[in-house]
This record gives sequence, C-alpha cells and structure tokens, in this order.
Amino acid sequence: MTTTATTLKGQPLDRQTLDAMLRRRLFFTPAFEIYGGVAGLFDYGPPGCSLQANIVDIWRKHFILEEDMLEIDTTVLTPHEVLKTSGHVDKFADWMCKDPKNGDILRADHFVEDVLESRLKGDKEARGEKVEEEDDPKKKKKRKTKTEAVKLDDNVVREYEEVLAKIDNYNGEELGELIKKYDLKNPATGVQPSPPVAFNLMFQTSIGPSSNLAGYLRPETAQGQFLNFAKLLDFNMQQMPFASASIGRSYRNEISPRAGLLRVREFLMAEIEHFVDPEGGKKHHRFPEVEAIELTLLDRHTQLAGKTDVKKMTIGDAVRNKVVDNETLGYFLARIHLFLQKIGVDMSKVRFRQHMENEMAHYAADCWDAELLTSSGWIECVGCADRSAYDLSVHAKKTGAPLVVRERLDEPLVFEEWQVEIDKKKFGPQFKKDGKTVEAALEATTQEQREKLAKQLTDNGELELEVAGVGSGTVKVSKDLVKIEFRKRIENTREYTPNVIEPSFGIGRILYSLIEHVYWNRATEDGGDEARGVLSFPPTVAPTKVLIVPLSANKQFQPFVNKISQKLRKIGISARVDSSSATIGKRYSRNDELGTPLGITIDFQTVQDSTITLRDRDSTKQVRADEDTIIAAIQSLVTGAKEWKDVAAELPAFEGQEVDVTVR
Amino acid sequence: MTTTATTLKGQPLDRQTLDAMLRRRLFFTPAFEIYGGVAGLFDYGPPGCSLQANIVDIWRKHFILEEDMLEIDTTVLTPHEVLKTSGHVDKFADWMCKDPKNGDILRADHFVEDVLESRLKGDKEARGEKVEEEDDPKKKKKRKTKTEAVKLDDNVVREYEEVLAKIDNYNGEELGELIKKYDLKNPATGVQPSPPVAFNLMFQTSIGPSSNLAGYLRPETAQGQFLNFAKLLDFNMQQMPFASASIGRSYRNEISPRAGLLRVREFLMAEIEHFVDPEGGKKHHRFPEVEAIELTLLDRHTQLAGKTDVKKMTIGDAVRNKVVDNETLGYFLARIHLFLQKIGVDMSKVRFRQHMENEMAHYAADCWDAELLTSSGWIECVGCADRSAYDLSVHAKKTGAPLVVRERLDEPLVFEEWQVEIDKKKFGPQFKKDGKTVEAALEATTQEQREKLAKQLTDNGELELEVAGVGSGTVKVSKDLVKIEFRKRIENTREYTPNVIEPSFGIGRILYSLIEHVYWNRATEDGGDEARGVLSFPPTVAPTKVLIVPLSANKQFQPFVNKISQKLRKIGISARVDSSSATIGKRYSRNDELGTPLGITIDFQTVQDSTITLRDRDSTKQVRADEDTIIAAIQSLVTGAKEWKDVAAELPAFEGQEVDVTVR
Repeated sequence: MTTTATTLKGQPLDRQTLDAMLRRRLFFTPAFEIYGGVAGLFDYGPPGCSLQANIVDIWRKHFILEEDMLEIDTTVLTPHEVLKTSGHVDKFADWMCKDPKNGDILRADHFVEDVLESRLKGDKEARGEKVEEEDDPKKKKKRKTKTEAVKLDDNVVREYEEVLAKIDNYNGEELGELIKKYDLKNPATGVQPSPPVAFNLMFQTSIGPSSNLAGYLRPETAQGQFLNFAKLLDFNMQQMPFASASIGRSYRNEISPRAGLLRVREFLMAEIEHFVDPEGGKKHHRFPEVEAIELTLLDRHTQLAGKTDVKKMTIGDAVRNKVVDNETLGYFLARIHLFLQKIGVDMSKVRFRQHMENEMAHYAADCWDAELLTSSGWIECVGCADRSAYDLSVHAKKTGAPLVVRERLDEPLVFEEWQVEIDKKKFGPQFKKDGKTVEAALEATTQEQREKLAKQLTDNGELELEVAGVGSGTVKVSKDLVKIEFRKRIENTREYTPNVIEPSFGIGRILYSLIEHVYWNRATEDGGDEARGVLSFPPTVAPTKVLIVPLSANKQFQPFVNKISQKLRKIGISARVDSSSATIGKRYSRNDELGTPLGITIDFQTVQDSTITLRDRDSTKQVRADEDTIIAAIQSLVTGAKEWKDVAAELPAFEGQEVDVTVR
Repeated sequence: MTTTATTLKGQPLDRQTLDAMLRRRLFFTPAFEIYGGVAGLFDYGPPGCSLQANIVDIWRKHFILEEDMLEIDTTVLTPHEVLKTSGHVDKFADWMCKDPKNGDILRADHFVEDVLESRLKGDKEARGEKVEEEDDPKKKKKRKTKTEAVKLDDNVVREYEEVLAKIDNYNGEELGELIKKYDLKNPATGVQPSPPVAFNLMFQTSIGPSSNLAGYLRPETAQGQFLNFAKLLDFNMQQMPFASASIGRSYRNEISPRAGLLRVREFLMAEIEHFVDPEGGKKHHRFPEVEAIELTLLDRHTQLAGKTDVKKMTIGDAVRNKVVDNETLGYFLARIHLFLQKIGVDMSKVRFRQHMENEMAHYAADCWDAELLTSSGWIECVGCADRSAYDLSVHAKKTGAPLVVRERLDEPLVFEEWQVEIDKKKFGPQFKKDGKTVEAALEATTQEQREKLAKQLTDNGELELEVAGVGSGTVKVSKDLVKIEFRKRIENTREYTPNVIEPSFGIGRILYSLIEHVYWNRATEDGGDEARGVLSFPPTVAPTKVLIVPLSANKQFQPFVNKISQKLRKIGISARVDSSSATIGKRYSRNDELGTPLGITIDFQTVQDSTITLRDRDSTKQVRADEDTIIAAIQSLVTGAKEWKDVAAELPAFEGQEVDVTVR
C-alpha cells in the first residue's frame, strides 16, 4: 500500500534523506550495530528518548489524569498458563512461508501484498502511467528483481486491487490459495514458496532455576490488567465504570521486521482497559462532550467491497447510525483523535479503519484502528476494540476467581416463576448413575414446560420427562422426589462480568509517523542548494525546547549562558547549550533537525544591555528583549498559552543575525 | 543479617502488619496471583505505580537534568555475542546447592547465612539473652525447624560472626568448604546439600522465526549504553567527560526470590555511565560542591577484619585519605546520598559499604554500595562502581569498533625514539610462513634492544634476534630488509579509552526501603486500640498529593468537589476524591495508609462561605481558608517551597472535625 509521501509543506518526502538525518541526530539507531545489529531492535538516542517521554507524558495527562484511570505496572514475564487461557498460545501467530530454494522466510500476507503491488506497478508502466517511486529503501533493496512492465487485463487489475483492499481478512489457507491461484513467486529466486504455516509470535523463556516453568514475554500489557481486575475494583471502592491503564514494553517475535520503527520486536505500548456494564447500551457519560467531533472513517463494508473510500462523519452520527457499535467505543475513538491532534499529527493523514469480521478476534464486538499515513503507507498506530467480556470470563473460568461486579440493586428484583425443588437425598438412590443427568434435565426445563409438569404431578402424582440417554429416553419422577411450584424470588444484587473497551497505542509507531508528519525541507522554499531538514514538533512534544547559543567562544558570554540555563532548568524547561565553533546558522540548522522550537542567542549587545534574541524555528524570525521578558515568552510558548505570532506581535523584531542565517 | 527494625517514630516495625496494609492499599501485589503467582514477580497497583513514577521523576531531575546527561532507551533483548563478550554468559551466576533428599534448590550464600544466623540466635537463647523476632514472615515460614537453644563456644561465635561479616566475599568452592566445615544442614530435611554449582542468572530466549539467534533478557542496562558510546560521543560533539543514563527494566532469574520487592526477577533500574579520562586522577569539576558532605562508610578493611563498624567522614576527606578511590567516584557517592535524602529516606538507616576484593568484578577499580536498613537487614539499593576501561575495551576488541576518544592536543607531543621500518615486499619472500612472526618480534622490541640491534646492522650488515618457534630460535635479518633509526615522531592527537564510573539504582528496592522508613503507627501514640498505619512520604514523592472529601453524599457539595479537582488538575497536582459513605475519619485514615499528605474537607460551611479545610497527614492539624488560599498553600507544600508549620502559622487553625478524627 505504498502511497505518495509528502512533507508537512507538501514537498515529496525523500525517505532516505530523512532516515540519514534521524540517524545523524541519533533519534534512534539499530541496536547492537557494532555487532552487526539484530533485525527489529532499535535503541532511542537522546532526542528520541525525550520525544518518547514527552508523548507518553501527554498521553498520561490526556487519558489517565483526565479520567482518573488506575495506572498499574505489571510484569513482562508471564507464565504459560495465563497466555494459554487468553488464547495467545494457540492463536497469536502470523502466517509464514518458506522459499524451498534459498530458505528465505516470508510473512505470507506481506509476500502476497508485495508481489501483487509489484504487478500492478508493472501494469501501470506498461500503460505508460506515472509510477510512484518506492519510498521504503529497505523494501526496494529486498525486492531483487525489477518490476516488469507487463500489461494486465482490466479484470485482473480490479481483482488484485480488491484482494489488496481486504488483505487483512485472509487466513493462512486463503493466502495459500492466492499464492497458487496467481502463481506468486519469491522475486529473489523465482520460486513459489511453501504453503503458509502458523508461527507463534511470542518470545519464550523459562522461569526459575529448575527451568520447569515455561513463560513468555507478554505480547500486550492487557492481560496483566485483567488479572488484577478484582483488586482494582476493590481499590476503586466497587465503583463502575472505571478504567485501568498501563504503559510498558511488549514483545512480538516478528517474522520479517521492516526497516525503521514500524515493525519491531520490542516496543512501548500504552493500553487502557475501560470496564463497562454490558447492559444499557454501553453509554458513556462524557459522550456529549465529543459527539460533534468529525472523524475520517473507513468502515468494513467499504473494504469488503474492495474499496478504500473514507467517509467524514461526526462520532455522534457514527454511533447513531450504528457505524460504530456503541457510545463508549465512540467516545474513545474521539479521544484518540484529540490526542493525535494534540501531539502534532497531520490530521489530514489520519483515518479510522474498521476491522473486517475475519480480521477481528472472534469475541470482539467491534474494532477500529487509527491509521496514520506514512511513506510506508497507512500504518496502524492505535487499536480500539470492544473485547466484550471475553478475557475476564476465560480467566475466571480457568482460575475460579470471581472477576465480576456485584451491584446492590436500589429496588430488589422480584421474579414470580415456576421453581423446581429436587429432594437430592432420595434422588440419588432412585436414579443411581443417571441421577445427575435427570437432575440437569429437570433444571433445564422452561417456564412453560414446568407449568405442564406441575400439573402432571398434581394430577398423576408423577411427571414424565424426556431425558436423552437415560433408559428408554423417557423418565418418570414421582412427587416425593420433586416439587414444582409457582413462587416469588427476590434478588438484592446483580452480578455481571464487565465488558472491556480497549484503546491500545503503539508509541513507537506514533512517534515515527509523527516525525514524518512534521518533517519538511527548508531548501526548496529558500531556493538554497543544500537540503536543510526541519522537524516542526509542537513545543510540548519537542525533545528540547530551547537552544542557547553564544555568538562565539568569547568568555564574556559564559555567565549569561549559565544564568539563562539555570533559570530555564528551574522552571522545568529543557535547554541545551551549543558553544561549538560552528557558525550561528549551522548551529541553528542542527537544531532545526532536532526539532528544537526556540533559540536564544547571546551576543555582544547582551554583554552591554542584557538583552537576548529569541528565534522561532519554523519562521526563522527573531525578537529581542531583556532576559526575563524572553524567558516569560518561552514559558508561554512551551505551555501552549501563546503562539509565535503572539510573541512576534508583542516584542520588537530583531533582524541582525538574519544575514548569518540565510547565508549559512 | 536480621536487625531490629523500627518505624519512623522508633516503634518496633511489625512486618506482617505493614505487608497487609501495603496489599490492602494495592501498593504492590504478587503477579498472576489468581493463577497461584510466580515467585519474584510483582505488579504495582496505582499507588505503587505513582510512587515509582515520582521517584523516577526526581531521579531524572536530580541526575540527568542537573548534569545534562544523555538519556537513552535501549532494548532488553540482547544477542548472545554481546553478553558473551561482556563476561555475563560465563560469569553472571550465583552459587546454587541442591538438597539431595527433597530436591530443594538453595542459594548457597543465603543458605550459609541463614543457618549460621539461626545458630547464633540459638546461642543467644541458651545464654538467656534477648532474641529479636524474625521480621520476614516468608523466611520464618520457610525455616521449618525451630531455632534450637544450643550454647556455642565463644570462639565459634566469633568465627560465625566473622564469616557473616564477609559472606559476600566467598566463591562457590569456599562456600562449599564452609558447608562441610560447619556441617550445615537444610532445616527442612536435616540433610547437608550438595556442593555449590554456578547457576547463570540470565533469562534465555531466541530471536527470529528460525530460532537460531540465541539471546537473553539484559541483566543490566549498562551494555546498551556502552555499545552506543561512539554515537553518544558524536552527539556530544566529542566533548569529554560526559554521562549517559538509562531507566529501564532488567531481568535476573534469581534462584530463590525473597518475599516482597527486595529480590525479584524483573525490576526497574536507573543507571548512569559517566565516561571520564583515566589520566589526571579522575577529577570532577563539581567535586568542591559536595566535598563537605558527611557519609557513613563501611570500608573493605573493616569487613575483612570481620567487623561492621561504620565511620562518618566527609567525602572530601574520604577521597583525600584514599578511602574512596577518586573524585569522580566520590562525587557520585555524595550525589547518591543527596538523592536518597531528597526522596525521604531515613539517613540514619543508610550506609555506604565498600566491596571486598573478591566481591568486586576483577576489572573494577573500586565499588561502593549504598545500603538501606530494613526489616530484612541492610539492603544494597545503589551500586557505584569504577568499571575502569573494561567494557569499552572488550567490545572494541571483539567488534573492531573504535570505542575511544581522540583528543586534539594543544601542543603536539614530540617523541625521539628508535623506530623499526620493515621492507615488507622483501620480508615475505625471505621468511615465507614465518614472516609475520619475525615481523611481530621486531615490532615488539624495546628501545634498549633497538639501540643494540641498530648497532649490529651498522657493524655487521645484519641483526640477530631471538624468535621462539622459528628455525633454531634465532633469526638473522639483513639490512636490506629492515632499518632501525633514531627519529622524531610528532603526535597531534591523543587516543584513549575512557574509564566508566557507574552509579546503578534498583528502583524497586529503594521504593520498598523508603516505605519502611516513612512508615509509622498512630495508635501507639494516641493510645488507641487499633493499629493505624501512616506513610509519611514527602509531598514530592507521595503517590497522591491531595484527598478531597465531601462531608457527606449531600448534592450541594458536588460542585465544590468538581471545581477544586479541576483547579488542582490544572496546576498538575494529583488529587483523589473520596465521596464514599465512610466517616471523614475513616476516609482520612485510608489515605494516611496511602501516604496522601494533604486533605481537603468540604462541609456545610463551604456551601455558605466557600471556605475549605486543609489537613496535614502527619500532625492531623487543620487550617481553614477560602479555596484559592488553600490551593496556593497546597502548591507551596507540594513543590517544597513551604512546610506545614509555615502554613499553620499563616492560616487560621480549624478544630471542628478533630472530634470526628479522634473518635474514628
């Protein structure tokens, strides 16, 4: 699903230039690189680490603090039995093919996708249409044979496009059929790979010195939250609904990790489990606050029809029209939308895609992914699923722990109904080994049946019941063994297993997509000859807020550098000093690449009158004022209270160093 | 090393009561408890999670921000080769014994410690001395045989005490000898366990679908920092010294995890790697700022003499007297001291213990642990080691990556020396397979040897050199193959491998020890009959800062609750509302157990005049004022700008609810 990638300013996005810049500035780097690296493992350098911390901090405020969620921190190591019960041991797998010639291991869905996309591209070339360059350099390199310009039948083109639109909907067998049907071959060898087999994605280990307790690294943080449900409900003083949340690493042994942060084997997740009463339509009391928010939706019907056309719709309408299953799910979709907006994601590159039936876990009631458009296509960054009561139910069943809510009813419920009362002491001796079966058959009778059976007892002193597998199939029970009477039953409490709405965030994917969204290139605007990358992070998200540059190594500047650094540190604003010998312009350029939104210059005028200049990364405009005025301006920009245009309107512009900036 | 544990107020600390309280308030809880739990794995509930986040936040400000350290975030999954090179595959092990009768697996040093301590206790009983109760309930339970009151020889007592003082200094063989010498038996079976064998503590897994890349879960975050050294030096624009830092989980497959958070298998670490030039005595430019700080030190000589007497000494004196190896190490010991003080640790329960020679890694120059006194004895919470150039050197050697600093010299260094110049073209054909060996032997000659060899060349036209394993052991080289001349060599750069000072923090151990240090019991002070626990966390560290309690469920109070919550949230102060039907006193009591330092009560007077009361957790005193005054007071208390006594002096005291509080 490669698409035309563009920068924040609409320029074509050159992935290789961006990657080189991110490596140069140490946003992230392949882990263990001096040992040759390990696919799918990345380390975050200082700017990436800080960017990640800022995104997590905003996430925590936006979700956890805003809604008093219960944050918990659970272990990654998880014993076998837990993940067996949750279904991960049996089902958490991807489909994997092997090339019989060179032993290449391929992820089946990606393989089908790649080959069909390549054929469609070849078709376009043959038709003389404009073909987009492949943006992912790793992918380009991997595909060893060049796309061949072969024209396809119009019908075939349509078929391929339909397959691609619902690629996530196929199981292993179906992928195997596609491989055969379209005779798909590994470009590296020209050979058709073996039929797909399931490969479990969990990393396995063993716990304890005797190595007999099998365990896994968790593939998600969710299970740790479910297992603590009863304790959390207690902690929340039995109040429903409530949500727990966890921020922590999870692990998936990906078959073929992609280059970069988009498919890695170790990653940071932030997950919410919102527990809600399944009765009453899963309403949310804050839904009215969000219902006017317009989302971009790609529903399952559109995808199954082989299309990818999105609809714009308010979340209020989407829930009313049953496009989105319920209010609570809709509430979280809107909150996710607001979060992405807050951290600076380009909202024209966001869509919410609904899972198709086969794609969704069998227990899920509905599921939507927030997808962000990048140079590698639409990337799932947030999942938001209604997991129903599945997880709590299976763990409760397995362990016997009561993972339920007991709600005291304001008005007791009174039921008038036919009740069966069995005299167990007599029942056993009478029916021997069939006792339990007959008992169960009696208990399973409907109200209508019971009314009739009660009449039989009164009339005949016994009842006749069909019980498959016992004697002739019909059993007689006399009235000294059973009573069936019309009685009142009063219930003071209601017991239920909550349903779970789960918004689940892949922080690394969001972080990388955000970088692409805020990236642009100054050269093409200024007409300069050298590409000069800029990352226009909002100040709240930017790894470092302020760059402090003394004009030169002159010792007179040092006291000002120290004083300003200390003042900024005291109000909790991260700043870095660059007193290297590079020109002011070069130093600012370096920090444009780091996404530092503000820059302070200390020059000879500073020494005379204690004024300093403040530079805006995006416009490169500067203002000049005394130290405290500038620091106050920085604080208002960093907290989001003001924008640059407000500051530029209030403080005198400074033109002096512009010369330096433009000639760099 | 069980000692008398006391609360913050000097009361005897009852470990079982504290544990029950921490579980009740969900600070932490055994992971997977509904599945029977897994030893050494714990989940943090909301207060524990928040406490941990606050400790980490203070750590980050105290260390990373204060000194512009480069924070990075590296992967837990680590390939075999990296940990083979670092020495962990071969040496990261504990000594393990097996009981041949019941198969119990015992950690050898703990086993020796436990049995000897039990014998010493039996001796005290036999002598009629007062014996401390065992504080660790898990330990009590595990030790199945009761301590027998058997009097020991005075010499034996001294011997046992000396062994215990240096228990960390024994290797496996020595522990085995102790077991035999003192005939130590597993109390559970009365049988002597098998000789200790090494058990590697790393969790193993395999990476990738073909399962052929062996890997481990990292046992420390340090290696990820070392591997990125060259990139970090670049990022720091080649400036030395600098430090990297990482906060993340590490894993150790402990042989016998202890109850609670003190010895767990998955834990959060915060580690600093400070890279310093090994020349010039490892000075630190900020050492003068800390040199007057007095630390409590237990040096290695004292321990080897079988004693545990501590010395109080300023870090300035300790470095001057060579008790602590160098300024940089000393600087960090003082900074660790300040950090522990800042988070509320009882400084009378802190000591810095120096590692003994055998205890320290062979490459380490010096190592000190900050130990905190708890009901389980002195617990290592922070390690601070001078790892010398070991790690960078072994990784550089293995990979060929230049993990070095190249420093441009202000004045070039001029060497006048005998230099060997070999004519390699002729050398090979002449010596054939021995060429490399002879070459190496020539290169390895000393200045004195070269002077003599040069004379031989001039005098005889050839030189004679001993080269073991080549021909007769003596080789002749003629002057057309080699020149040896006295020449000038000029060096403009100096290349060196930095040394590493590593402060390494176990966050979970610090968190638990801190809880014990701030815990006390109100009942014994008030004379009440029920134990009422209080956790006197400093406000900066407390999980929640403010409790908001409406007097009753009366609807008039709700708008005030909402408004105050919102105002506090806006200034980033975490608050929780308790509008349950419990009495005000009960609700405050609950929050004393959670360590919430401040409480706001909304009562009928609030509805009339908008004033609210503010309660201090530690004194239970209250003041009353209008909303904004109280919120300003809260802010100054939470940031540490004011203490309660300042607020109590400024605002009118309120006595009203004290009745309620005292009768609860």
